[in-house]
Amino acid sequence: MPVSRTDFIDGLVTMVGNGNAAMHCGFAAHIYAANVSMVDRYFSDADGELLIVPYEGRLRMHTEFGIVQIAPGEIGVIQRGIKFRVELPDDAARGYVCENYGAFFNLPELGLIGANGLANPRDFLTPVAAFEDRDATVEVVVKFMGNLWSAQYEHSPLDVVAWHGNYAPYKYDTAHFNAVNTVSFDHTDPSIFTVLTSASGIPGTANVDFVIFPPRWLVAEHSFRLPWFHRNFMSEFMGLIRGQYDAKAESFVPGGASLHNCMAAHGPDAMSFERARTAELVPERLDDTLAIMFETRFVCHPTRYALECAALQRDYDECWADLPRYFPT
Amino acid sequence: MPVSRTDFIDGLVTMVGNGNAAMHCGFAAHIYAANVSMVDRYFSDADGELLIVPYEGRLRMHTEFGIVQIAPGEIGVIQRGIKFRVELPDDAARGYVCENYGAFFNLPELGLIGANGLANPRDFLTPVAAFEDRDATVEVVVKFMGNLWSAQYEHSPLDVVAWHGNYAPYKYDTAHFNAVNTVSFDHTDPSIFTVLTSASGIPGTANVDFVIFPPRWLVAEHSFRLPWFHRNFMSEFMGLIRGQYDAKAESFVPGGASLHNCMAAHGPDAMSFERARTAELVPERLDDTLAIMFETRFVCHPTRYALECAALQRDYDECWADLPRYFPT
Amino acid sequence: MPVSRTDFIDGLVTMVGNGNAAMHCGFAAHIYAANVSMVDRYFSDADGELLIVPYEGRLRMHTEFGIVQIAPGEIGVIQRGIKFRVELPDDAARGYVCENYGAFFNLPELGLIGANGLANPRDFLTPVAAFEDRDATVEVVVKFMGNLWSAQYEHSPLDVVAWHGNYAPYKYDTAHFNAVNTVSFDHTDPSIFTVLTSASGIPGTANVDFVIFPPRWLVAEHSFRLPWFHRNFMSEFMGLIRGQYDAKAESFVPGGASLHNCMAAHGPDAMSFERARTAELVPERLDDTLAIMFETRFVCHPTRYALECAALQRDYDECWADLPRYFPT
Amino acid sequence: MPVSRTDFIDGLVTMVGNGNAAMHCGFAAHIYAANVSMVDRYFSDADGELLIVPYEGRLRMHTEFGIVQIAPGEIGVIQRGIKFRVELPDDAARGYVCENYGAFFNLPELGLIGANGLANPRDFLTPVAAFEDRDATVEVVVKFMGNLWSAQYEHSPLDVVAWHGNYAPYKYDTAHFNAVNTVSFDHTDPSIFTVLTSASGIPGTANVDFVIFPPRWLVAEHSFRLPWFHRNFMSEFMGLIRGQYDAKAESFVPGGASLHNCMAAHGPDAMSFERARTAELVPERLDDTLAIMFETRFVCHPTRYALECAALQRDYDECWADLPRYFPT
Amino acid sequence: MPVSRTDFIDGLVTMVGNGNAAMHCGFAAHIYAANVSMVDRYFSDADGELLIVPYEGRLRMHTEFGIVQIAPGEIGVIQRGIKFRVELPDDAARGYVCENYGAFFNLPELGLIGANGLANPRDFLTPVAAFEDRDATVEVVVKFMGNLWSAQYEHSPLDVVAWHGNYAPYKYDTAHFNAVNTVSFDHTDPSIFTVLTSASGIPGTANVDFVIFPPRWLVAEHSFRLPWFHRNFMSEFMGLIRGQYDAKAESFVPGGASLHNCMAAHGPDAMSFERARTAELVPERLDDTLAIMFETRFVCHPTRYALECAALQRDYDECWADLPRYFPT
Amino acid sequence: MPVSRTDFIDGLVTMVGNGNAAMHCGFAAHIYAANVSMVDRYFSDADGELLIVPYEGRLRMHTEFGIVQIAPGEIGVIQRGIKFRVELPDDAARGYVCENYGAFFNLPELGLIGANGLANPRDFLTPVAAFEDRDATVEVVVKFMGNLWSAQYEHSPLDVVAWHGNYAPYKYDTAHFNAVNTVSFDHTDPSIFTVLTSASGIPGTANVDFVIFPPRWLVAEHSFRLPWFHRNFMSEFMGLIRGQYDAKAESFVPGGASLHNCMAAHGPDAMSFERARTAELVPERLDDTLAIMFETRFVCHPTRYALECAALQRDYDECWADLPRYFPT
Repeated sequence: MPVSRTDFIDGLVTMVGNGNAAMHCGFAAHIYAANVSMVDRYFSDADGELLIVPYEGRLRMHTEFGIVQIAPGEIGVIQRGIKFRVELPDDAARGYVCENYGAFFNLPELGLIGANGLANPRDFLTPVAAFEDRDATVEVVVKFMGNLWSAQYEHSPLDVVAWHGNYAPYKYDTAHFNAVNTVSFDHTDPSIFTVLTSASGIPGTANVDFVIFPPRWLVAEHSFRLPWFHRNFMSEFMGLIRGQYDAKAESFVPGGASLHNCMAAHGPDAMSFERARTAELVPERLDDTLAIMFETRFVCHPTRYALECAALQRDYDECWADLPRYFPT
Repeated sequence: MPVSRTDFIDGLVTMVGNGNAAMHCGFAAHIYAANVSMVDRYFSDADGELLIVPYEGRLRMHTEFGIVQIAPGEIGVIQRGIKFRVELPDDAARGYVCENYGAFFNLPELGLIGANGLANPRDFLTPVAAFEDRDATVEVVVKFMGNLWSAQYEHSPLDVVAWHGNYAPYKYDTAHFNAVNTVSFDHTDPSIFTVLTSASGIPGTANVDFVIFPPRWLVAEHSFRLPWFHRNFMSEFMGLIRGQYDAKAESFVPGGASLHNCMAAHGPDAMSFERARTAELVPERLDDTLAIMFETRFVCHPTRYALECAALQRDYDECWADLPRYFPT
Repeated sequence: MPVSRTDFIDGLVTMVGNGNAAMHCGFAAHIYAANVSMVDRYFSDADGELLIVPYEGRLRMHTEFGIVQIAPGEIGVIQRGIKFRVELPDDAARGYVCENYGAFFNLPELGLIGANGLANPRDFLTPVAAFEDRDATVEVVVKFMGNLWSAQYEHSPLDVVAWHGNYAPYKYDTAHFNAVNTVSFDHTDPSIFTVLTSASGIPGTANVDFVIFPPRWLVAEHSFRLPWFHRNFMSEFMGLIRGQYDAKAESFVPGGASLHNCMAAHGPDAMSFERARTAELVPERLDDTLAIMFETRFVCHPTRYALECAALQRDYDECWADLPRYFPT
Repeated sequence: MPVSRTDFIDGLVTMVGNGNAAMHCGFAAHIYAANVSMVDRYFSDADGELLIVPYEGRLRMHTEFGIVQIAPGEIGVIQRGIKFRVELPDDAARGYVCENYGAFFNLPELGLIGANGLANPRDFLTPVAAFEDRDATVEVVVKFMGNLWSAQYEHSPLDVVAWHGNYAPYKYDTAHFNAVNTVSFDHTDPSIFTVLTSASGIPGTANVDFVIFPPRWLVAEHSFRLPWFHRNFMSEFMGLIRGQYDAKAESFVPGGASLHNCMAAHGPDAMSFERARTAELVPERLDDTLAIMFETRFVCHPTRYALECAALQRDYDECWADLPRYFPT
Repeated sequence: MPVSRTDFIDGLVTMVGNGNAAMHCGFAAHIYAANVSMVDRYFSDADGELLIVPYEGRLRMHTEFGIVQIAPGEIGVIQRGIKFRVELPDDAARGYVCENYGAFFNLPELGLIGANGLANPRDFLTPVAAFEDRDATVEVVVKFMGNLWSAQYEHSPLDVVAWHGNYAPYKYDTAHFNAVNTVSFDHTDPSIFTVLTSASGIPGTANVDFVIFPPRWLVAEHSFRLPWFHRNFMSEFMGLIRGQYDAKAESFVPGGASLHNCMAAHGPDAMSFERARTAELVPERLDDTLAIMFETRFVCHPTRYALECAALQRDYDECWADLPRYFPT
Repeated sequence: MPVSRTDFIDGLVTMVGNGNAAMHCGFAAHIYAANVSMVDRYFSDADGELLIVPYEGRLRMHTEFGIVQIAPGEIGVIQRGIKFRVELPDDAARGYVCENYGAFFNLPELGLIGANGLANPRDFLTPVAAFEDRDATVEVVVKFMGNLWSAQYEHSPLDVVAWHGNYAPYKYDTAHFNAVNTVSFDHTDPSIFTVLTSASGIPGTANVDFVIFPPRWLVAEHSFRLPWFHRNFMSEFMGLIRGQYDAKAESFVPGGASLHNCMAAHGPDAMSFERARTAELVPERLDDTLAIMFETRFVCHPTRYALECAALQRDYDECWADLPRYFPT
């Protein structure tokens, strides 16, 4: 985690990854923590596109296409190969990054959901062209094949005066997400909370999906409203932006991360389970909550950093230890 | 409408139709009203499959594959070419029929909705084999190319002793429908209430969809919760099984039908509009309501019967006459 | 049927049709009977492509692309819009014609059958370029929108000196058909005998398929080897080239035709049934047999000629009258 | 191979593999040999689904979904992530295992073969729910990313009381396979013997296919009935369940395995070739034979075990040494 | 043609049509000639979308979404069901209309042509919202199922205050068309000049394409640069906006129209042919030319008006009469 | 590079590669330089198919299917697993080789370009069957999983007497390439120069494309005619057959190679830029030029040989150093 003066690049730490950047599949999940703006320093990622999800502090990203500023609750996406530098309007900035090696993030097909719903196209904002015209010795850092490469330029690389096309950074405020879910019974698959998807060649098994668990109403009757206990094909990397995640009553905080890899069983912790089991099923408004998930068809490999960091919850599975046996009754 | 003794066949009246039965596209909407069982009489439809939606009285359908009994709130589907006779367990039987000339009804792709939701496969029931072994002179009526053809058999045609395969009648109870909708804001497209779909070759524009508006919770905030005023590509034939349809406060009763053809503007009536406009947006449970829709990509032609029957609402568009002008304010 | 001097055009009679030539879907089945060559007369069909199946006498077709000669057991295909004239090497010529309004005939996807099987591409023969350089007053007859239009040219229209491309007439000898079928038990769907298919937009439901029932081995054990009794979605127009069709022991002769439209039940006649029911199931070589089928997803409309001709078998369904009841035993 | 007391897990040995379990593609072929049931021990494979093909002794698999018992001639499939233990009703159990990392096994599209044929869906059997309710210290072994991981539970993990869905183990008896093949001439591609297929994204090149060579009739005329000599794109791992494989007259026994990797030429051995070359081509019933093949689009890597085991046939290619030169004659 | 005071609606005359508006396939080609603006009169087409191609005078279309003004060289598209009125900024207005019953016009897939070329998305202009707030008795004319229906409103129907979405009228200036063609030899298919396409379900055979023949360079060497003589599957309806069409040296003028239906042979007239045959093949700039084509997969039926109007060129085929015979030389 | 006596196999050197031969994706680019024919030596590549592009000297390839001879300007393709030997009709032979591990090279879909254009199918030539009947001790070298394996045969492996099928070597003369490009303005994507494509599962991102920049006319007006400066997703390996590549005025010679990997910015060198910026935009014939490109969706890894060879241009990026700043003006 950042010490002394750390900018966005230096503050990036990789938690998990999968796939193969050279073959343009898979993704990596990073976290960042920075306390200074990038000065005379620029970044570009040739390995993948960056979906940035702050949970603390704003990021002001000066890109070749203009300026994209995001705050917690919002996300920003900077595509493969685009140069940018990150300013910090606030004292500190922390968040998650999904580095997508595969197909560009796109809105999912809504299918039966119809013409409107989930993340609506009109809420994605692309910057107005802006450029820097300055002579200076700057460092340009490029991530390529998993390494960072540094070069000196004698001018700002953000010297694109105008542009047209559809390959440009964008931002999205998750407050605009039109959440859709059961209005009768049962617990609906979290796929229904997909914001953006990086398709694999096989429908239903994305390279990586960006999923949110936003504020919403819960109204299911005759149902256990929390996520059911499950093992699944897709691997789930979760984070928290604000508030509490309903299936994890304690010890899941902003900046935290959980990984449930392919076929690793999981579900609500014992306390959440008990609360849900006995709750009166009246309409309930979930407020002040925003969890996120990077869900992927490939198995995630945690980094040495992730496996050895002090914050690792070695007793993570204890959260299920108190689940009693309910059958036979 | 049925007089004296009328069985299911004699009690069928066609309201609208489109497409071309010989080319296996389009559909027809019928209503039926019967007061006696079919005796020594059998029916089969070579033009299309029959989706039967009773709103009054049960139907007990003896088919080549076994017995399918349905009551209001349930539906039954008998495929093209299958012979059956209809018994009436109750004094009278009334309902709607969707005769689908196109691709067989199928469950829609759920896409992001996930592995469960809407109509779940396990709730569709197929009959146990049963047969009739009797010598009798019976009439077999076949619908073919829009006409009814009659023949005499000296035995029951329901003489199939056993069967295997996946082309068999089925029933479904709409009470098992897991309704999905917005749990945040906005009004979701009615496509999300699709129970069964007859695909056309073009995704998003079904030959005909069977849609229901079942009991459910309404929780949308900051929204006009009723259907918006719209003109659309698809044509909509609606009916009512029970209760009240939320966008039509009056004069829409079980057995009634409305047709909004391609690009015919429609929306809530003035009273429903006013009520929705001023409602407090707390969670609201819609109970005791079940409307249905046959939605189709082709323009519907009403029959002479439909256009001339006494029940025709010639002042139908008066329901919107009292809508005031709200802009400029 | 042809009287006095009748050439190929004058000898064509339409039996059934469906679809819509202007919209390029459906097909028509014709029969032809000719006793003279076309002299100073040329034909071209703008409505569809012609698949010609002789059962008596050879046809020598002089086309814009060269000469295609076919004999019984072979087929010839002349595409939409190609001019040709037909010479008769023998005294008389009779056969069937499938006029395909839809997608051009193509070899079906073999799928699991693999790289070789059924009709192999290398057995389809395209003519060497040949042309006529003559001044003469000739008649050119064009079929367009169901009518025949006649015009005079002062030269042969077969004046194409050379060509390249893949839109050219071809012939195929059904003796090269590699028949595939069960080698263990059961009766395999006749789709496995497909020679050429005109696709509709919907897999499994061709605009029209050309199917043959060629000489082959029958080895199914524990099975009723003949076609089962069935009603089906596709409509079947059958003809006979030579020998006997195994499910129709009598009264089906070369030049004959049967039509089993959508959902019309059919199966072996009583005599064939009895024979098959009691046969010893040793390997049996079906020789000297060649039946054909035009199978189509649209319902066929018979012509007035077909319905009124003297050869109509008004008691056709009598062939099933003697089928006894076998259940309950 | 198993010594002293060896259960199903301990008796598994890997022969070949390809692809990448973390990226959910490819497969591995194992053989097993066990002589005791698994006691207080459970297994689950997070890397792939297990298709188990016994050639000696029965397996009784207690799974989370119920009990699946298979004998030689049958196969069992246990999907990724499902816990089970294996009991041995007989003294010993030996067989092959296909561990499929890719898309779940599915029935192949039959295409022209029609509605019935090859492995029919109704012959696949899924277990009735059953569970174990016992307190005991048990070992649960999970295969994940190529390693076996062991954990202790204080109860049986087979504690699923009831279930619904379509992700459940199944069995299939190959005696129900309706073999389809040429009934005229030529040798048909072995793809026509496909029982189950794990699709890759590219039609025609499966991740892995499960293929059988079952008892059947051979009737091809004017043909060399055995497999032709070939090099091919797909790689072929073969095994034998019983009897003799027709293209390998000697030295291929139950439990044996052959690997012909991408573009490795192969075909009948010299003795089989000579026999086939001179055989009289009357109908011939192949009985008492059941060979299997795992065919895959990726190149297979043999394990050190496979390359070094005593049973390795180092002179395997000698089987073709005696093939004489037939051309020029 | 318009006499006295004729507005856009009254000045529409249908030339050819095909398909079926109720089944949402096919199209109609109209021409219009108007000399007054629509006053208190509005139009809407429920049968199809309108692609309007003026060759004389501007059209100022007030729509529910705002104002779209087009001049010769530009096109405007108003979708199915959108209300609008047409003002005439100039004394007169004449042009062509493609009424598309099928899938909405869309940009074609560019395939190998790449990311830019032909009609670029950024050159399509959508109006800024604008509305009319007026009380008046107005006539609203709606085209539905081939008929015009008239109703009185007491206010302007252009009362949409704001909108979002992607179903809105647009305009395009053909001067922005990036023409692509051979830069080496041969004559390229006119499909390469496609501006917009209404897809049918079958790739390569559009419901209707809008094609232009714009100013461009001709550089083909060793080639006959004009369209070759051809018969084709698609039917071609052509018009002229300005200048001369290179394959029709005379008698094709703005406002004229030609129809070459399915398999009707056509090509350059004799004079154009001779000129092209003997031209020196240096680079040549085609300027001051703009021809258009509505190309469709269905056969076009000309209207009685088209067949009987005084302007009909009954000797149209005389343009080829002087083509000499060049072979044998 | 070849010293003393070097045949085609010994003269192959690998420059870059990507993907995974065992998993049948990716490719490698090699160069070859030979001065003697292969004598008693044969080659076969099980890892991929070989697309051979000579820039100096002819190659006469004796294959199992017959003889394929190519000269500079032509290409030859020998598929995976086919045995051949290479004779040198000239003193030396040098060229490029694309070893394609993925889907076989195929002609790209032309889409709007129509029925003819780019590489036409009829210009691809397949050999007439030819075989060697000789007893001799020969060496057969097979490339498999990246290694070369050698074996001795006592006869020529080119002993295939006859063949049928569609898996056979072919050649193509790029002089037959019908180049298509802008005939109005702008610079068209190089994808329009695709000769052959090896599809990946994702349209638009080929496993590897073979692209040429052949002689052609440049006529774009108001445009910068050279390639624009770009970074892109695909990686580009280029070579030169003859003449000059228009965007690289100097230091790019036949036998040279450039690699611009994913997201590496590139464009015309400073001299080419200046020339193009100030050129008069009259039609210009590019003659005596033939550059090639292997373009691929995966990132290319250069070999140690490529990175260390004397010819490496370490100052390659100097070609852009003299580009002045033009904005602000």
